[in-house]
Amino acid sequence: MTRVFITGAAGFIGSNLADRLLAEGKQVVAWDNFCTGQEEFIATARRHPGYTLVRGDNLDAPALTKAMAGCDMVFHLAANADVRFGLNHPERDLQQNTIATFNVLEAMRANEIKRIAFSSTGSVYGETEQIPTPENAPFPIQTSLYAASKVACEGLIQAYCEGYGFEGTIFRFVSILGERYTHGHIFDFYKQLREHPDHLRVLGDGTARKSYLHVGDCVEALLHTVGEGLAAKASNRVAIFNLGTSEHCAVRDSIGWICARMGVAPRLDFAGGQRGWVGDNPFIFLDTARILATGWKPKLTIQQGVERTVDWLKANEWIFQSRA
Amino acid sequence: MTRVFITGAAGFIGSNLADRLLAEGKQVVAWDNFCTGQEEFIATARRHPGYTLVRGDNLDAPALTKAMAGCDMVFHLAANADVRFGLNHPERDLQQNTIATFNVLEAMRANEIKRIAFSSTGSVYGETEQIPTPENAPFPIQTSLYAASKVACEGLIQAYCEGYGFEGTIFRFVSILGERYTHGHIFDFYKQLREHPDHLRVLGDGTARKSYLHVGDCVEALLHTVGEGLAAKASNRVAIFNLGTSEHCAVRDSIGWICARMGVAPRLDFAGGQRGWVGDNPFIFLDTARILATGWKPKLTIQQGVERTVDWLKANEWIFQSRA
Repeated sequence: MTRVFITGAAGFIGSNLADRLLAEGKQVVAWDNFCTGQEEFIATARRHPGYTLVRGDNLDAPALTKAMAGCDMVFHLAANADVRFGLNHPERDLQQNTIATFNVLEAMRANEIKRIAFSSTGSVYGETEQIPTPENAPFPIQTSLYAASKVACEGLIQAYCEGYGFEGTIFRFVSILGERYTHGHIFDFYKQLREHPDHLRVLGDGTARKSYLHVGDCVEALLHTVGEGLAAKASNRVAIFNLGTSEHCAVRDSIGWICARMGVAPRLDFAGGQRGWVGDNPFIFLDTARILATGWKPKLTIQQGVERTVDWLKANEWIFQSRA
Repeated sequence: MTRVFITGAAGFIGSNLADRLLAEGKQVVAWDNFCTGQEEFIATARRHPGYTLVRGDNLDAPALTKAMAGCDMVFHLAANADVRFGLNHPERDLQQNTIATFNVLEAMRANEIKRIAFSSTGSVYGETEQIPTPENAPFPIQTSLYAASKVACEGLIQAYCEGYGFEGTIFRFVSILGERYTHGHIFDFYKQLREHPDHLRVLGDGTARKSYLHVGDCVEALLHTVGEGLAAKASNRVAIFNLGTSEHCAVRDSIGWICARMGVAPRLDFAGGQRGWVGDNPFIFLDTARILATGWKPKLTIQQGVERTVDWLKANEWIFQSRA
């Protein structure tokens, strides 16, 4: 029986992953500080006999080490994901991403756990000229504190694989959406239209292209590559996979899908310019040939993913109250 | 009058840089915790009216911020450079390199200083297949905690350039040697032969290829690219330069030059294997076309650099006492 430790287990992706692991008969030790995690996301999982919730913070190394005891592998998903306002509090990415990941790796070492899967980001490619971007694109220059911290985490994991015999799988995600999605463009658009269906403020000029993946397809990819021991079979101790769909959309497209699903026809107020904020990538579009070659493929298109996200937000009005 | 802040100012490269800046009429604020820095390296500089020594540690953010007041730019050279035994104390690279660099950047921000030059390493390319390795080689996988921490530092600096308008110059060094060199292969070989001239223990099999640059050429490159405002003129706010010579040597070659210079003929005991220790790069050889295009070029060959290192060690026997 596999016993899986998940950091950020009450978050968007973590809670979806936990549900799926429980359904497969795995045991889950769920670790979360509930800083952005939601009690409601784990309400069902907590009733499962294979689920153990431990409340704690990755910066509390002794508690983290204790909680991890007896686990076989770690999905390290907890992170500061506030990319946009990173410049207002530069210490946050360092602490919650870089130092937190170091603590996770040290807790694993203390517990003799060697397998880790890590959620990195397509933002690590900065403003690469190679689009779609493969995993071995030219050594990029970082454009945000968030991506810089994720690169730092990747490097730590890689060095632990080389130095301590860890087996790591690093996933560079596009934006994920779907059930329990509570931040990012689609969420912001929905939230605005829910409050004032007659107009929508849009950062940039609406032409920015975006790449999204549905959380169900994301979780499937994590389990397909890590769960099947693919990382262990690879020639390197560390496997790196881009994770996304082979399509992209413009911000205007996603606005159209959201409005149609909500039955609204707002006036669009564009702030102008090509990007939303300093450090915002104008376009992340990943070459996913490597993970497609493992047999995984996404089941939903971007449009379907956006529509399911809108449906979930409609059915979960409480999310707007709890975050008010 | 430029006032330059140097972290690691009592170290090998920092003290050579400080001497050179003073000779050019610059003012130097020298910051060092004397963990590996040497009082003797700054004995002459301290008598110069343009030199201010401040003893402190990069992990003491308030003291660092205070010491930096009134400076125009920062050469951030302080680092944990114990690559080989990094696995014995994994927290050291995180603290003394990654967190220290964050503190330096925050101290700069508090003092409204925007120009930084940073000593990174050719180790960041890991086991790249592209040799000689250009700055835009494929996105590498890290093989040591040291290099992983340097990548983390590079990413932080790049994000500060994008987000806060900093101007950064990042140098990826090969191994530097010359006057005041006190660690690494050449030092170890000399130290052994000084103690027992009849035999020499060598990690690996002697075929490992190494790339070295003399500290005088290194300091010249730092001043040429940063001092001349080249970084400021570049289209990007961050400039990255590999720094090395366009030649390399085998460990056996360097042993030959050392022995000849010392007048000894030891028996060589090879430990065998292609690399010295776990995480040791078998071969770092950098493509330096980018920095050569700026007009800088090294004055000394690797052999001349090794010989000058041996001469300096011969003339500075005290170094072996102080580190005993």
